[in-house]
Amino acid sequence: MAAFEPRNADFEAAVRAVFAAQPFSALLGAELEHIEPGAVTIRVPFRDDLTQQHRFFHGGVLGYLADNACGAAAGTLAPAGAAVVTVEYKLNMLTPAQGEALRCHGRVVRAGRRLVVCQAEVLAVADGVERACALAQATMSMQAPQD
Amino acid sequence: MAAFEPRNADFEAAVRAVFAAQPFSALLGAELEHIEPGAVTIRVPFRDDLTQQHRFFHGGVLGYLADNACGAAAGTLAPAGAAVVTVEYKLNMLTPAQGEALRCHGRVVRAGRRLVVCQAEVLAVADGVERACALAQATMSMQAPQD
Amino acid sequence: MAAFEPRNADFEAAVRAVFAAQPFSALLGAELEHIEPGAVTIRVPFRDDLTQQHRFFHGGVLGYLADNACGAAAGTLAPAGAAVVTVEYKLNMLTPAQGEALRCHGRVVRAGRRLVVCQAEVLAVADGVERACALAQATMSMQAPQD
Amino acid sequence: MAAFEPRNADFEAAVRAVFAAQPFSALLGAELEHIEPGAVTIRVPFRDDLTQQHRFFHGGVLGYLADNACGAAAGTLAPAGAAVVTVEYKLNMLTPAQGEALRCHGRVVRAGRRLVVCQAEVLAVADGVERACALAQATMSMQAPQD
Repeated sequence: MAAFEPRNADFEAAVRAVFAAQPFSALLGAELEHIEPGAVTIRVPFRDDLTQQHRFFHGGVLGYLADNACGAAAGTLAPAGAAVVTVEYKLNMLTPAQGEALRCHGRVVRAGRRLVVCQAEVLAVADGVERACALAQATMSMQAPQD
Repeated sequence: MAAFEPRNADFEAAVRAVFAAQPFSALLGAELEHIEPGAVTIRVPFRDDLTQQHRFFHGGVLGYLADNACGAAAGTLAPAGAAVVTVEYKLNMLTPAQGEALRCHGRVVRAGRRLVVCQAEVLAVADGVERACALAQATMSMQAPQD
Repeated sequence: MAAFEPRNADFEAAVRAVFAAQPFSALLGAELEHIEPGAVTIRVPFRDDLTQQHRFFHGGVLGYLADNACGAAAGTLAPAGAAVVTVEYKLNMLTPAQGEALRCHGRVVRAGRRLVVCQAEVLAVADGVERACALAQATMSMQAPQD
Repeated sequence: MAAFEPRNADFEAAVRAVFAAQPFSALLGAELEHIEPGAVTIRVPFRDDLTQQHRFFHGGVLGYLADNACGAAAGTLAPAGAAVVTVEYKLNMLTPAQGEALRCHGRVVRAGRRLVVCQAEVLAVADGVERACALAQATMSMQAPQD
């Protein structure tokens, strides 16, 4: 995969500021673990109130992670001041999301001027071992302030 | 669309029991508003901690709703004791999810023996007026206890 | 669903011209059966060389239909001279695509300034009876000449 | 990614036989270039009648490739005699599909007992240089004869 050149030198601060301004991310206890041009990792530690009827992480947490990680990955390549919004995403569940945390790697596959195609992989961390539990493909849109 | 014949006479109680056993649904304040064979409606009233950086509902809430409404819709047609799991879903965002509540209608499009194809529409309710804010298409799997 | 107002009075001629200029549509024997603002129907009569190993229509023909019907439906709402391109689509197969023809209804769900969300239903016509065999949800992009 | 263990020692012959029995693959001039456990490559050389209105490969050819490559990749892991069918796929277009051929790599991401999640990348080969032009994520189903 090609290396990506950020258009905003302060991309990390910009992406962290958006993440920090999301009350829903705080509600879920999500942490922005890693940021680089075209890729991010978000982590959600296990909590009882994030689960479904079998005490696995609820699918809604996986959807949140895939969507937000793709948005943040696209955000690392956005012009300063641009708004990044989700156009759509598609998520496959792979295995039950069981463990002490979820980690989601989002990365940009192709960055056009306005549309950005991303992939995200959600990993369940159980006893320190990571196992893929969901896979997503997404389309993000970014709009520069003067556009 | 064809009317659907439930295979479990107690389908409503079964779907309500699964929903009530999901701590994540409680965390989000979600309510199972309506159930019929092949269709359900789930509602999430606005709360500050469900929002993103612009104080709209976070996309993760929309993903939760689409996924859970499709799962519950499939659940209305499942045999007694069957487990319903999400295989995958795809969600398009249509307009900003702004208002006093979200409502999500999930419905079965085609029910096979094991796989169920569903659609979900998420509506934002603002000043009592509903406006479509997301649209999803999903594949659910159901497995009977003896299968 | 809302009625759609075309931005190009000659939308039908514009959509028919694009369709007629597609050699692949001719190869498949596809016919643009119906056009209205926000919706089209495309038909493909059965031919042996459109089939898979069980003599059903090949999934590739269903994918073609869903993609092209959504593109044409979006095209009915495009400004004069605009290019409509497929951003992405998602297709669920519902039942085997068996019969004397396929018909695909594509329709616009939501038209933004640049992005258009569409749905398509593919029907298999067997002994004159139509049965849904595939369902798609798509994102199209349109770009006006001066944009 | 994990290596995959085929359940059918004659997996290559089985996948080639299905492909050879598809009249639509012959109509498109598709060739099964490479097969290994969990992965295949299909190639379609350029022909005028495979194009859309700008003389790029029509999106329908890309959809065919993604669908068929994921099906064949899943087929390499199927039990002898099993039928592999497409449940659904989602395809993002990345760049115009222009060049002397398309190649599509399909690979299995996760193989369950019945459901198989796959990815496919479509590359346009222009002057011998390959460039990604589409990306897909798919769900396949396989059913053993005795199931």
